Amino acid sequence: MRVEIVAIGTELLLGQIADTNSAWLGEQLAANGLSSHFHQAVGDNQQRIVDALRIALGRSDAVIVCGGLGPTHDDITRDAIAELMGVPLVRDEAVVARIASFFAQRGRTMSANNARQADVPVGASLIEPVGTAPGLVCPVGSQVVYAVPGVPSEMAAMFTSGILPDLQARMTAAGEQGVIVSRVIRTWGASESGLAEALEGRIEELDARLAASEGETVTVAFLASGIEGIKCRLTARAATRERAVALLDAEEAEARAVIAERLGDIVFGLDDQNMERVVADLLIERGLSLGLAESLTGGMIASRLVDVEGASAWFRGSVVSYATDVKRTVLGVGDGPVVSERAAAEMATAARRLLGADVGLAITGVAGPTEQDGRSPGTVFVGLALPDAPAVARELRVPGARNQVRSFAVISALDLLRRALLAGSVVGS
Amino acid sequence: MRVEIVAIGTELLLGQIADTNSAWLGEQLAANGLSSHFHQAVGDNQQRIVDALRIALGRSDAVIVCGGLGPTHDDITRDAIAELMGVPLVRDEAVVARIASFFAQRGRTMSANNARQADVPVGASLIEPVGTAPGLVCPVGSQVVYAVPGVPSEMAAMFTSGILPDLQARMTAAGEQGVIVSRVIRTWGASESGLAEALEGRIEELDARLAASEGETVTVAFLASGIEGIKCRLTARAATRERAVALLDAEEAEARAVIAERLGDIVFGLDDQNMERVVADLLIERGLSLGLAESLTGGMIASRLVDVEGASAWFRGSVVSYATDVKRTVLGVGDGPVVSERAAAEMATAARRLLGADVGLAITGVAGPTEQDGRSPGTVFVGLALPDAPAVARELRVPGARNQVRSFAVISALDLLRRALLAGSVVGS
Repeated sequence: MRVEIVAIGTELLLGQIADTNSAWLGEQLAANGLSSHFHQAVGDNQQRIVDALRIALGRSDAVIVCGGLGPTHDDITRDAIAELMGVPLVRDEAVVARIASFFAQRGRTMSANNARQADVPVGASLIEPVGTAPGLVCPVGSQVVYAVPGVPSEMAAMFTSGILPDLQARMTAAGEQGVIVSRVIRTWGASESGLAEALEGRIEELDARLAASEGETVTVAFLASGIEGIKCRLTARAATRERAVALLDAEEAEARAVIAERLGDIVFGLDDQNMERVVADLLIERGLSLGLAESLTGGMIASRLVDVEGASAWFRGSVVSYATDVKRTVLGVGDGPVVSERAAAEMATAARRLLGADVGLAITGVAGPTEQDGRSPGTVFVGLALPDAPAVARELRVPGARNQVRSFAVISALDLLRRALLAGSVVGS
Repeated sequence: MRVEIVAIGTELLLGQIADTNSAWLGEQLAANGLSSHFHQAVGDNQQRIVDALRIALGRSDAVIVCGGLGPTHDDITRDAIAELMGVPLVRDEAVVARIASFFAQRGRTMSANNARQADVPVGASLIEPVGTAPGLVCPVGSQVVYAVPGVPSEMAAMFTSGILPDLQARMTAAGEQGVIVSRVIRTWGASESGLAEALEGRIEELDARLAASEGETVTVAFLASGIEGIKCRLTARAATRERAVALLDAEEAEARAVIAERLGDIVFGLDDQNMERVVADLLIERGLSLGLAESLTGGMIASRLVDVEGASAWFRGSVVSYATDVKRTVLGVGDGPVVSERAAAEMATAARRLLGADVGLAITGVAGPTEQDGRSPGTVFVGLALPDAPAVARELRVPGARNQVRSFAVISALDLLRRALLAGSVVGS
């Protein structure tokens, strides 16, 4: 099954927003054994949308259209699909009622425009909406056009609930067997090229095997993902899901062994396990709560941690001490430079005490562009106060511009906590 | 002149990297009065690249191809363009020599692969390279295909030096003039559909004028951008930049008047002015510093504020009081529910005092999925403590899932502060 992605919106053509939806969808399709040979982006113009869809259906089996399902006059994806199908749009009163109740529940009145979101091409079925706009499944002969909103969270939820199951059923009906399954090994502590170099021999072996066989394959790719770390993605293709997973299990074990030998303990998780989820699990396992003192990162660590489900069970809070004298008055940091090992250790101790936490983690440093306390941009100190031990601090050198320094500091500080929790016999009282 | 952008690379289709080149090129084309109606992305497959180029030449006057000019076996853009032109590739020995000297200057030896980058379709001319790969200008009848590397910095430099002048010469030859200029009016406080409805009459007038004339046009579009607010984009096309800006000035005044009359004071900025930048400017103007107490938003307001350049001049810090008893022990919130008007006001007062700030802003609420203190998800209280006045609090109802509640709460809280600063005669001591 070849699936083409068509992104709708003049703002994409004008470069006012970047098209992240197509990348996300491409990743999901590949992970589910579906090929995608072309992506298109087209503006809010009905004739051009119809043209783009005709071209897509001429070279692919299915098309996913993203965007143009909103309530305003330039949201014309519904109209374009109806034209393509050669059918009229009919207003679905049940959908109108649902949109009206969506607004009523929020104490607002539905504006007349919103009823447009209930217009459905005759013959199409609906994908349950996340916001107000339902998605559409539109058969075109033996082919199909799916439409979802351009809001990334709505698009993702509706792809998973409404599009993927339909595509999988079509694959099965077409007798397509092969399954592609991916697994991401997540690392922090080596560069992308360092990781690639360590696994070079292994990749050559896999390439040789791939050339020798038209059947099962495993491929390896690397991706630097900022605050999410450096990812190593294994992709296996096999006749069944079970067999693909078995290939991945073997390859993961092989890659982990090589990485551990060459680069040390840099693998922190798999797939969706980001650094904060891994740290959360370690804290829960050990019955520990966490309090932060953040300067350089300005609340960014805290805001990542509260996104972890159930964070209230172990996260106490953070003192974002951006101004130097707040470090002194609120956290009791002593005289001397506030970008230093000593300040980081004092901040960690104070965070632990003030927030009533078992563990205190603190971060101070220079994001740039200018130096501070005689320290150059990229200098970062992480302080850590564990139960029954004096606070410690460590200096890190983080490359890049202001925002990158912050992101790397966040994942580096959490990684330091992860290593300390794994190394020590720390348990809560 | 219609220019289509074709991005080359299997990694784009697989979502391993986001296509930022097409967005950048789209912006540049619009700024220079060139239309772009379609973008495509295609993988490293010669037949599919040729197909994509044929489709592009069928609906556009010129095509910019990005990527696939590197030295490795999967860099086949040169081959695909030669096939499209129906000509052979010829190795340009002057280019080979230049690449070899590029390596020699860096103390490295050119690998044999790199010579492929000197292959040129017969009839094509070269764009001076930034790295090793030259760009190509390839005439196809009266149309043209440009090829540049996918490395963003090389692509941008070669677009400016080699593609734009050629496109401008072609526009002049075709008797085309004209510039497209956009302006974004940023709002918070009305829904996207409410905003569209308010401006409906105005848009109809503009559409009628557009239909009546082939010359100057102004169009209006809307975009809901989460934490960035709801955007209203005005786009003007005219013979000169000055004239387009004059059209935008007039249309902006018109739109502002209609919005103010129908929806009140919801416009907070233009173009790149996000809510935190606007709040920062107001604080600086009035000589006030700001301290936060965040529960629901968990540090997200603070981490947005420290991204504003020069934040250290007015931002003191934030107490992220995620655990209920941290609100009581650190911030001194009294007995009773912590999701309440009273708690929000107490938090704001405490933030002001504890962080030594002129203004205290606090936020407490229920992100969901479950209720808290008998309050349903989406209930948010914002507290505000200004100098020489008792703290006040206001209840907001925020729609959506956990993450969306947080994002909307951030911009809503900052908007409340913005309105208070604009309304009051608050100045720093």
